Amino acid sequence: MAEVATLQGLYEEAKAKNLALDMTRGKPGSEQLDLTLPMLDLVTSSDYKTAAGADPRNYGGLDGIPEAKELFKEFLEVSSTDEVIVGGNSSLTLMHDTVARCMSHGTASSSTPWGKLEKVKFLCPSPGYDRHFAICEHFGIEMITVENVNNDLDIAKIEELVAADDSIKGMWVVPKYGNPTGTSVADEVVDRLAKMNTAANDFRIFWDNAYTVHHLSDDVDVIKNLFEVAKAEGNEDRVFIFGSTSKITFAGSGMAGMGGSVKNMDWMRSHLNISTIGPDKINQVRHMRFFGDFAGLQQHMVKHAELIKPKFEVVISILEEKLGGRGLASWTNPKGGYFISLDTNQGCAKRVVALAAEAGVKLTAAGATFPYKNDPRDTNIRLAPTLPSIDEIKQAMEIVCLCVELADAEKNA
Amino acid sequence: MAEVATLQGLYEEAKAKNLALDMTRGKPGSEQLDLTLPMLDLVTSSDYKTAAGADPRNYGGLDGIPEAKELFKEFLEVSSTDEVIVGGNSSLTLMHDTVARCMSHGTASSSTPWGKLEKVKFLCPSPGYDRHFAICEHFGIEMITVENVNNDLDIAKIEELVAADDSIKGMWVVPKYGNPTGTSVADEVVDRLAKMNTAANDFRIFWDNAYTVHHLSDDVDVIKNLFEVAKAEGNEDRVFIFGSTSKITFAGSGMAGMGGSVKNMDWMRSHLNISTIGPDKINQVRHMRFFGDFAGLQQHMVKHAELIKPKFEVVISILEEKLGGRGLASWTNPKGGYFISLDTNQGCAKRVVALAAEAGVKLTAAGATFPYKNDPRDTNIRLAPTLPSIDEIKQAMEIVCLCVELADAEKNA
Repeated sequence: MAEVATLQGLYEEAKAKNLALDMTRGKPGSEQLDLTLPMLDLVTSSDYKTAAGADPRNYGGLDGIPEAKELFKEFLEVSSTDEVIVGGNSSLTLMHDTVARCMSHGTASSSTPWGKLEKVKFLCPSPGYDRHFAICEHFGIEMITVENVNNDLDIAKIEELVAADDSIKGMWVVPKYGNPTGTSVADEVVDRLAKMNTAANDFRIFWDNAYTVHHLSDDVDVIKNLFEVAKAEGNEDRVFIFGSTSKITFAGSGMAGMGGSVKNMDWMRSHLNISTIGPDKINQVRHMRFFGDFAGLQQHMVKHAELIKPKFEVVISILEEKLGGRGLASWTNPKGGYFISLDTNQGCAKRVVALAAEAGVKLTAAGATFPYKNDPRDTNIRLAPTLPSIDEIKQAMEIVCLCVELADAEKNA
Repeated sequence: MAEVATLQGLYEEAKAKNLALDMTRGKPGSEQLDLTLPMLDLVTSSDYKTAAGADPRNYGGLDGIPEAKELFKEFLEVSSTDEVIVGGNSSLTLMHDTVARCMSHGTASSSTPWGKLEKVKFLCPSPGYDRHFAICEHFGIEMITVENVNNDLDIAKIEELVAADDSIKGMWVVPKYGNPTGTSVADEVVDRLAKMNTAANDFRIFWDNAYTVHHLSDDVDVIKNLFEVAKAEGNEDRVFIFGSTSKITFAGSGMAGMGGSVKNMDWMRSHLNISTIGPDKINQVRHMRFFGDFAGLQQHMVKHAELIKPKFEVVISILEEKLGGRGLASWTNPKGGYFISLDTNQGCAKRVVALAAEAGVKLTAAGATFPYKNDPRDTNIRLAPTLPSIDEIKQAMEIVCLCVELADAEKNA
């Protein structure tokens, strides 16, 4: 009880500072957005055509201008531009619309709409991305939480589940620098995902490669190419790949892309043919002039890394300094992406988030990283360091660490 | 038979010219697109914020930046910005997504998804817009063709149908300068649409006001405000209003908007909250700087009219010169919009389109303006004069008129 009292004293002091800090948002900071400002000058009234000299102003170009498709071919790691669709400003929309279309029309592998089935289930490796889970919940898809083991997918469990139940139609994966784990899938996991037997012949992996080029330094994670392995196994229709430039150029005004087998992309194009007059091709011209090519995009990411790496380092160093070796929490130390995953002892995460909020530090709601907002052991907290300044992160993390100590002490008191 | 032979001779002469003309596309011509080029210079690396000084580069702003919502409030003729959503580059997408959401989730008036019902039907006033019909067909919605009478909706028939059948959930209307008729709905029709009893309590009018500011001169059609009348009747949830700047600025890079009751817009926002990270707000800033306000947008349309009015006049004058008073065809003479509707005698439209194609003039497929591509009397042909040059229109229309004569003569031979 002495310890609780001491910690409470420190906590009251922290509260008295009346801070208003936010560690919740996986958004680029404004200095990151500034890196892309020159792009706004690259399309003008006298100079706006595509690389081939085509006029991008009118209707059409359903799946993107040629150079943008070429870029996304490399970005999504597929082998031909027929395996690519570039559309709109949001990969979330591409993912939502793909699920919506599977629900209303079925897939390229089966014309039975998922929405006509008694039950549709998705595997949700967790902790994971709340907006993926929100899409499932929105469409009444039952989510099966598959907790990660050793910061990777529990592939044995996944294999077992998909082999046994043909109502399991899909799964979500953020394969590289995952949200919120920051970790990447192992080669063996990729192989087994590509090869595993699925009871459903229209099973789909939603491979949200959101952070594929979002390294913090030149010490990078490299993941095996799922689509290539799946192709070799004759399972290429299993894979939908997604990505965007939202965290590369402007978060709201980027380009989003989707990749997969020609059969899957033709399926998507046949839907797009009904639903759109084509993407904003002028914005695609703007982007392609800015990047030049995929190498140019990768160069641009080095500048992002320079800005956000120190932010990640501050989080990690304060966690180590305050909580290291004390048995109070564990955390990931990612080489890229937008998040650090903090795990408290069992039953403490909600309390930590509540305490932090009261002390003026907003954290992502505990549970948000699990289906139905239900973290079964109440341990996971997602930390998002890109938006606040280094000074704000310092102040916020001091308080977060204090709240972890206090919540743990309260529990053991 | 003598006449047929003579006409065939003329037709062979026309064919020998090996023309390649296209009257099919409701697209702005490049001189029209040029009118908007200055817009591309209005957002730069040093000057890109909203009117209120907000940063438009990041995620968020689900239903548009404030000044764009203000513009669409006037454009869609609703009374508050809460009754407006500005999103994406395509009103077709907003319409498709609205239907998709009604199918998967029901409406704000009923949580029963239309897709769970035995049967869903839409009324399709015809001739109408093929892409509306394609959306219905895509979702398995049964289309009931309601042929126009005197170039307006057959409102008596519509009233009768919706009152009797609760599986009729919606209808499409292009109320002003319709596609393809070019005509506008009468005030009395608006009143009756707003007031009519519908057996379905979740009946929706998809009011695609695509050509609301697309006048050819200052002699304009004014249509009564459906939403206002519906509100007065307590039927405001019946109306979804759509529009875009696709044929005002750049066809592929415009802004699309949707209007309706706060209840309906909140329903849509709750769906958007799942499916998107927000629209391209930088493009909205670009547009709003270009227009200034709604009056500025209207001024801009005067320039479009100057370019396309002569094209419409050429079509009409050749039709009058070649076919006028001969009982071979009738046509509309619109005050705005993008199309002229040509009606041949019964059973001739398909033949005219085929003959024209063989002579190098592409016309919209006969039947395309009806549900299931089935024009029951085979009379309607949609003419789209905006894209070709005046010289091309002249050549094309000479051939179209010749084909009308020949098809008619063949039929009577």
